[in-house]
Amino acid sequence: MNIFSDKQTVVRPADQTAMQGLVQQYRAVRQASEDLCAPLEIEDYGVQTMVDVSPPKWHLAHTSWFFETFLLAPLLPGYRHYHPDFVRLFNSYYEQVGDYHPRPMRGLLSRPTVKEVFAYRAHVDQAMLVLLELSETTASEHTERLTRIGLNHEQQHQELMLTDIKHILGSNPLRPAYRQLVRPVVQAGPLHWQEYEGGLVKIGATGDGFFYDNEAPRHKTWLEPFRLASRPVTNREYLEFINDNGYQRPEFWLSEGWSALRQDRFSQPLYWEQRDGDWYEMTLGGLRPLDMEAPVCHVNYFEADAYAAWAGQRLPTEMEWEHVASEQNVAGNLRDNDWLQPVAAAGTGGMQQLYGDVWEWTRSAYNPYPGFTPPAGALGEYNGKFMCGQYVLRGGSCVTPADHIRASYRNFFYPADQWQFSGIRLAGDLS
Amino acid sequence: MNIFSDKQTVVRPADQTAMQGLVQQYRAVRQASEDLCAPLEIEDYGVQTMVDVSPPKWHLAHTSWFFETFLLAPLLPGYRHYHPDFVRLFNSYYEQVGDYHPRPMRGLLSRPTVKEVFAYRAHVDQAMLVLLELSETTASEHTERLTRIGLNHEQQHQELMLTDIKHILGSNPLRPAYRQLVRPVVQAGPLHWQEYEGGLVKIGATGDGFFYDNEAPRHKTWLEPFRLASRPVTNREYLEFINDNGYQRPEFWLSEGWSALRQDRFSQPLYWEQRDGDWYEMTLGGLRPLDMEAPVCHVNYFEADAYAAWAGQRLPTEMEWEHVASEQNVAGNLRDNDWLQPVAAAGTGGMQQLYGDVWEWTRSAYNPYPGFTPPAGALGEYNGKFMCGQYVLRGGSCVTPADHIRASYRNFFYPADQWQFSGIRLAGDLS
Amino acid sequence: MNIFSDKQTVVRPADQTAMQGLVQQYRAVRQASEDLCAPLEIEDYGVQTMVDVSPPKWHLAHTSWFFETFLLAPLLPGYRHYHPDFVRLFNSYYEQVGDYHPRPMRGLLSRPTVKEVFAYRAHVDQAMLVLLELSETTASEHTERLTRIGLNHEQQHQELMLTDIKHILGSNPLRPAYRQLVRPVVQAGPLHWQEYEGGLVKIGATGDGFFYDNEAPRHKTWLEPFRLASRPVTNREYLEFINDNGYQRPEFWLSEGWSALRQDRFSQPLYWEQRDGDWYEMTLGGLRPLDMEAPVCHVNYFEADAYAAWAGQRLPTEMEWEHVASEQNVAGNLRDNDWLQPVAAAGTGGMQQLYGDVWEWTRSAYNPYPGFTPPAGALGEYNGKFMCGQYVLRGGSCVTPADHIRASYRNFFYPADQWQFSGIRLAGDLS
Amino acid sequence: MNIFSDKQTVVRPADQTAMQGLVQQYRAVRQASEDLCAPLEIEDYGVQTMVDVSPPKWHLAHTSWFFETFLLAPLLPGYRHYHPDFVRLFNSYYEQVGDYHPRPMRGLLSRPTVKEVFAYRAHVDQAMLVLLELSETTASEHTERLTRIGLNHEQQHQELMLTDIKHILGSNPLRPAYRQLVRPVVQAGPLHWQEYEGGLVKIGATGDGFFYDNEAPRHKTWLEPFRLASRPVTNREYLEFINDNGYQRPEFWLSEGWSALRQDRFSQPLYWEQRDGDWYEMTLGGLRPLDMEAPVCHVNYFEADAYAAWAGQRLPTEMEWEHVASEQNVAGNLRDNDWLQPVAAAGTGGMQQLYGDVWEWTRSAYNPYPGFTPPAGALGEYNGKFMCGQYVLRGGSCVTPADHIRASYRNFFYPADQWQFSGIRLAGDLS
Repeated sequence: MNIFSDKQTVVRPADQTAMQGLVQQYRAVRQASEDLCAPLEIEDYGVQTMVDVSPPKWHLAHTSWFFETFLLAPLLPGYRHYHPDFVRLFNSYYEQVGDYHPRPMRGLLSRPTVKEVFAYRAHVDQAMLVLLELSETTASEHTERLTRIGLNHEQQHQELMLTDIKHILGSNPLRPAYRQLVRPVVQAGPLHWQEYEGGLVKIGATGDGFFYDNEAPRHKTWLEPFRLASRPVTNREYLEFINDNGYQRPEFWLSEGWSALRQDRFSQPLYWEQRDGDWYEMTLGGLRPLDMEAPVCHVNYFEADAYAAWAGQRLPTEMEWEHVASEQNVAGNLRDNDWLQPVAAAGTGGMQQLYGDVWEWTRSAYNPYPGFTPPAGALGEYNGKFMCGQYVLRGGSCVTPADHIRASYRNFFYPADQWQFSGIRLAGDLS
Repeated sequence: MNIFSDKQTVVRPADQTAMQGLVQQYRAVRQASEDLCAPLEIEDYGVQTMVDVSPPKWHLAHTSWFFETFLLAPLLPGYRHYHPDFVRLFNSYYEQVGDYHPRPMRGLLSRPTVKEVFAYRAHVDQAMLVLLELSETTASEHTERLTRIGLNHEQQHQELMLTDIKHILGSNPLRPAYRQLVRPVVQAGPLHWQEYEGGLVKIGATGDGFFYDNEAPRHKTWLEPFRLASRPVTNREYLEFINDNGYQRPEFWLSEGWSALRQDRFSQPLYWEQRDGDWYEMTLGGLRPLDMEAPVCHVNYFEADAYAAWAGQRLPTEMEWEHVASEQNVAGNLRDNDWLQPVAAAGTGGMQQLYGDVWEWTRSAYNPYPGFTPPAGALGEYNGKFMCGQYVLRGGSCVTPADHIRASYRNFFYPADQWQFSGIRLAGDLS
Repeated sequence: MNIFSDKQTVVRPADQTAMQGLVQQYRAVRQASEDLCAPLEIEDYGVQTMVDVSPPKWHLAHTSWFFETFLLAPLLPGYRHYHPDFVRLFNSYYEQVGDYHPRPMRGLLSRPTVKEVFAYRAHVDQAMLVLLELSETTASEHTERLTRIGLNHEQQHQELMLTDIKHILGSNPLRPAYRQLVRPVVQAGPLHWQEYEGGLVKIGATGDGFFYDNEAPRHKTWLEPFRLASRPVTNREYLEFINDNGYQRPEFWLSEGWSALRQDRFSQPLYWEQRDGDWYEMTLGGLRPLDMEAPVCHVNYFEADAYAAWAGQRLPTEMEWEHVASEQNVAGNLRDNDWLQPVAAAGTGGMQQLYGDVWEWTRSAYNPYPGFTPPAGALGEYNGKFMCGQYVLRGGSCVTPADHIRASYRNFFYPADQWQFSGIRLAGDLS
Repeated sequence: MNIFSDKQTVVRPADQTAMQGLVQQYRAVRQASEDLCAPLEIEDYGVQTMVDVSPPKWHLAHTSWFFETFLLAPLLPGYRHYHPDFVRLFNSYYEQVGDYHPRPMRGLLSRPTVKEVFAYRAHVDQAMLVLLELSETTASEHTERLTRIGLNHEQQHQELMLTDIKHILGSNPLRPAYRQLVRPVVQAGPLHWQEYEGGLVKIGATGDGFFYDNEAPRHKTWLEPFRLASRPVTNREYLEFINDNGYQRPEFWLSEGWSALRQDRFSQPLYWEQRDGDWYEMTLGGLRPLDMEAPVCHVNYFEADAYAAWAGQRLPTEMEWEHVASEQNVAGNLRDNDWLQPVAAAGTGGMQQLYGDVWEWTRSAYNPYPGFTPPAGALGEYNGKFMCGQYVLRGGSCVTPADHIRASYRNFFYPADQWQFSGIRLAGDLS
């Protein structure tokens, strides 16, 4: 199970139709975002170390803006915006809402201060609780649905906050720790190959619980026979690739990956560094010796694909992955991990660590499912407009909120992105 | 049928196993490249107007380099390279062959001169004919196979040469014509929707005739019921989108497309221009009034996708497209087109213009087929390493060599690319 | 007089040879830097809004690093660096000291925190006071000289801190005020032309009081007869230039200026903005209506030069400027200005506002004086290595420490720089 | 003497007032430009290897455009432009003439062809001869003056053509020669220091013969005593600097120079290359072993300044240089040099090679002389608007037309520019 598990209730709309439950969940999710920031210094809240990173302060404000924009402004009679300029400042990318502060300049805003952002959150929370109470009376399904989206949205940002905090601290020459963390010592079990016969299968959200629009419609797809590795690639295994000059041999790399690599943008997983011949990795607990047993993490798609080519294998498709994963119970596979880094799985049997260790790169471009149509209006921009140039990752990581992990979940990032908790699971053809 | 048709023999390995036929085909294809350049001034051969464009001189040399590198050097005993520096100068991107002259600097080479490049071609041709004669005796399947790849490779460059010549002349403020061309006057027929029930179908090369590695393996795929437009979108129809402020309304655009558009990189199809309120388009025959009846051409993926969204439709997948196209006879659908621009199809029945008018953007990212493995060695770099970030286009255009058009052919370009003869065919879901 | 006046003792080496005075001055200057930051929020200390700007925190640390590097480490026996990484983190550009943190990344450092930076200052101050006491006994002229450089260095950064704070707050869409400030209401007096006959004159530091190496040697120069405006150009006058389409008429602009302008990098003085047809300017007291009477400020060299061309005049050379200014008593010309913006001079007689209102662009490139040689060692990098591509500004501004203003002082910035408190005084030829 | 010497008549307005002489000169200068291009291949005429370089074809057209724009269009009744688009295509930078084709895109124009450009020249020449004949009758001083400017302008471009041709061929991996050239073998004489007492001197054009506006007004300036090296720095001497790690030691470099160097933009003079441990240099005669005796050439200002710092000297000011040079007879100092590279001066006495070997970097920023005002109208853009960010070079090089060399001539380039025939003469202070 993961760090968020003891603080939040899993969303199960089926047995939680009462708004009362939603109010409790609202409080829990909103509180979790703030708890995440507790170890930060005021100075940490405002920094943007690269364009992909957002300052923690911005995450805290933007998730509130989401409720303000999509619920309070249209649905709560007489609602007053906390600050007229926040409509523009904390809009992430919703063109249909209006102009927005340029993403690369999120780190240039010393104001509003952290204190003001917390006040903004309190203002939104107070109004949301009024709105939810109102809805309890009127049993508004619309409010309920939008609130659930807002909470899932906030949970996505909780993971991004940890990812971005790691980048902010990891880019600092002082290598400060987010908080003191204890590293578990575990030996990785041997890698097995599991075989699957494929055929005409169904993938996509089953409709049981919350899901995003991009997980639907559930649909048929044909899978050729394939095999899947029983666990992710470890740091030790990845180091063999490096030591075999993997980063110097173009035959393993996609053309774009080789170009990126030659422009010196990466030559090892992000956060790895060598000091006096020994390998270290920056973690949320500070700089630590590289854990050889743990799954390799913070590799981009190019590295994942090149590693697979070097190993004579390939990455799975997202359909293969989901087909296998849907047979696994999520909750039963999540492990408590206060370490906030992927940890080796000691076991030997079956399919391991599909959920909650590292996001696993698939070779599937992030495309719409057959029959997918984005919803009308600004919320239609949530997922659909990003279906270009990105790859799907599956499974969730050690910093993903537990109830945000499911078999049908489609995460997506650009092939050059390293700063997510992303790793590698190998696959292969059978025939 | 298309401009190349009267100059080349279609490759039909089935009834052309004799090397004699291959020699004839070799001569024909090589000659066709040179014939294409006949209307050029010496000055036109060396210009590179953007990084995607290669100078015609470079195309002529690189296609010779291909035979030299993959056939003559390894297979012809005692072969001497024409010039030691050409190994590096005319390598396009084969990392396993060695270092290569940077792509953005292809236009900076005044030497070798055009005359020297033609001498290089003659040198290679002479040696190739010796090699083919040798092979005739020894019946080397290896030589035959590589020669066929080299000829198909050269045909790809024949299309690129016309595409690039158009860009070189089209970027010139004088808007010079490649050669005098006569525009056919045809009315476009009405657009019909054709319905398909889908199901478990097969796509990929059937093995009948030449195909590239990326067209294989032939494999099963599941298609939901869909419909496909009977003809491509016309300039007139596309103009409605522009006049409805299509380029100013973010709700139709992918996020990356909207960003590209706002950076002023495009706001209309390439080669369109407005003078005194009237629309013109640059063609290989010079600047001409926009032909409202003809298929829209030189749109990128973002534009194709946005147009479809505006029209309430979508683009087809490459599987849908091939499923429909494989029922159509290619040769019977190609039209003579000396105009070197797409032309309206006047007819009213059935599925029209799948082949040879415009390359049709599909919504399918360019990914490997299930079971695909690139061949070992440098030729493995031909297709496989580009399977990232690009989209598949299908069908061939008015500047594609006729025998280079087939149902399973997968062309691929980046979503921002406009300089190909690329257009739009709409699709939709049924249910 | 200017904001620093009540907090600092003017450096008068002549009557202050005793180290006792230097200790007092050390305390005063160091305290002044911290007092300047009193109105800031913690969040304001870390932001870098453009590459020229440094975060206030960085200024506070770097000025301490200067004492640590050039005095404590080499001169105080047993001195321990506060933090080993600070040697690199807070080196600005001294190549001979070693590698340094890249300038564009100064704003990405959330750590050390503000609190830690203040602790660093205290650590350095404590050690400096020990060193100065030691020196008192040994009467070390070397220590005294370096300390004076360190204090003048810190005063330069005090001005930069205000300049950078203005940019940090002025770039924020909320337009927050540094602190509440009262704008004086003054009418500008009429502009007169003062004539000077020139001839063989001397310029450069006289040796009376502290001066930088670039102000020496004092040397002869020949001046043709010239005239100088009695006061700087006002906002009202500059607005006439704008309203006469000054920014649209290339005939007034240097080639580089016109290019910069067309790339949309500026089209009015920095901090000016028009809202509903009225002009406003961002000040350290927040956004205020443009003061038409005050000297125009935050113009770059291109704008200053173009304005002069439009007005049919020219900018003065630094020799002309100093020749005139050296006849003026500095202290008698400085005015109290708590407003931290230039203010109109109401008077009518003589040469006004040479000191302490705006830095005045001269047409002199920042070049070495005849006989100038930079000192050996890292301190030789202080001024000499920047003698390329910049222009000299003279006179000091409303945010310059009072005892940092003198006739021979040579400030220098790049022609495109707008963020300094820089203005325009016109000159002309006589003949 | 230099390559142009046998083809042109030196402009001596004093004894050449008759227009007849001007007509002869017009023919000679125009012919010289075309003669320069005789060794080129058609392909060489169109290439632009970097933004500073213009294709030879463009030079040929632009110099004709100059006569068309400033003489034919306004002064010749009934003149018809050769082509309406050429007004824009071949305008270099005259904003007051109108819009112009972007400089970085000069190499993308395959049309007009070389043949058409020569036809353009013939058209302009024919009209110019009519105009000059007309003027002969009317004795128009205006036409005469503008024609002289046009011819001097063309001579500047003759030097630029050779400079640019060298870059075009020197950037080509094949290192082709412009034409076969014989390298003279000469030993450099020893370097002496010549001393000058300075004082109040006069510099600037004396009014004897043609001069540009930026050489005037002649004016007084004060020089401190100084010394000047008797000859330029040689390749052998410069190599000592390289071998002493000159390019790795920041203490010798201006800050901007060090930055440029670290961005890998240069680490040795342009056209130098090491092969198997030996040094070679690209010349207009192809790649040749480095001539250790010859003056170092193709260094930028940063290198010149760093070399001087390493040698414990400095560069001269342009006033010092001119003061010395004005005592030297130009014609008597020019040497025949068909080699088109600087050559060692074997002599031992006096001040050598001030004229016609390498342009000598001075430490003077390119600023207006006291009293300088650019002429009104577009021709005012010729020199004045570039007085920002550049340094003055003096003396002329081995590719400068002989009658374009004089003591008061001010050439100017940006400090990073290496592609001119620029070298180093050392100076120092006396006292």
